[in-house]
Amino acid sequence: MKEKGLLIVLSGPSGVGKGTVRKAIFSQENTKFEYSISMTTRLPREGEVDGVDYFFKSREEFESLIEQGKLLEYAEYVGNYYGTPVDYVRETMDDGNDVFLEIEVQGAKQVRDKFPDGLFIFLAPPSLSELQNRIVTRGTESEELIRNRMDTARSEIEMMNLYDYVVENNEVATAVEKINSIVQAEHCRRERVEKRYKKMLEVE
Amino acid sequence: MKEKGLLIVLSGPSGVGKGTVRKAIFSQENTKFEYSISMTTRLPREGEVDGVDYFFKSREEFESLIEQGKLLEYAEYVGNYYGTPVDYVRETMDDGNDVFLEIEVQGAKQVRDKFPDGLFIFLAPPSLSELQNRIVTRGTESEELIRNRMDTARSEIEMMNLYDYVVENNEVATAVEKINSIVQAEHCRRERVEKRYKKMLEVE
Repeated sequence: MKEKGLLIVLSGPSGVGKGTVRKAIFSQENTKFEYSISMTTRLPREGEVDGVDYFFKSREEFESLIEQGKLLEYAEYVGNYYGTPVDYVRETMDDGNDVFLEIEVQGAKQVRDKFPDGLFIFLAPPSLSELQNRIVTRGTESEELIRNRMDTARSEIEMMNLYDYVVENNEVATAVEKINSIVQAEHCRRERVEKRYKKMLEVE
Repeated sequence: MKEKGLLIVLSGPSGVGKGTVRKAIFSQENTKFEYSISMTTRLPREGEVDGVDYFFKSREEFESLIEQGKLLEYAEYVGNYYGTPVDYVRETMDDGNDVFLEIEVQGAKQVRDKFPDGLFIFLAPPSLSELQNRIVTRGTESEELIRNRMDTARSEIEMMNLYDYVVENNEVATAVEKINSIVQAEHCRRERVEKRYKKMLEVE
């Protein structure tokens, strides 16, 4: 009878501040999400704890997990693997808890394929809406600079396509508040609530 | 370039506490919604002000407005007309403000036909989820009582069909918080934000 938890995926262009927003979410006193710890083959940095910051694995272990389909998404950066163990995600959701992933755009695509019902949130750089001012006050900046900025904006807007929500990261506290609202709203979606009520009546 | 406001429709079975929740929403210091004042043919009660509590109209005026298609929804209760003037709703939305309607289920159906993009929130009685306990602890209540309650529940669940979100009215403050979240989340929906960004680039 328990309602399944949500899978919340926070992603966005690199440098947008995903990590900062995620840390702020988990430093809230009453965070309602379970953070999905990533797996990596890179060596622990000073102070990093296995099972807290990351699950640290050897290259062989990681590749064997890939083969067994145990990774929801993974990628290789600078010679090291990074990925999300799928079992933890599934078990946490089955227990009725919401799981929170903070991952790169490439990884988010892999997750969408496997969990189309996930809640995909795109963290957008504030520069996107600042762009308008730049265009309007043209003349104070070089034509080339604006053109470059517009090209970047176009590719960022294209990235959004896969996502359900877009949160602009103007201020970390506001972004956190919006993400909390999005998740709360999602729990109130009619299809979800209706299903729970209908299940209740089936007991009959 | 201004983004259009949302139309937020709060409805639910009679007696669920729609009016109380609406008042609590509008007693918040930083309410972001514009309340759509209803029009009625009933006489003002003591203390009621025209244009604040209601727009008070004669029966002839009201019927002429119906004919002119000036009412977003209307109904007749106990010999008096009640309705929502459509011009105010459209103008407020065009100005970029969210409009809030608190109406009966019948009216909500009429609004959905005219504004399919509105945000429809169903306020559900807490008794719906209490029902499960009643079913489980059967024996403490008469079989007939439970059966009646279940029939009511079924018809309430059927009413939800038209709505986007369901908020259970267990506690007014929690219901208000959820409604605020739903509206904030809706403003972050990708289609909406993406459209705004794309418009920005069109200036080019």
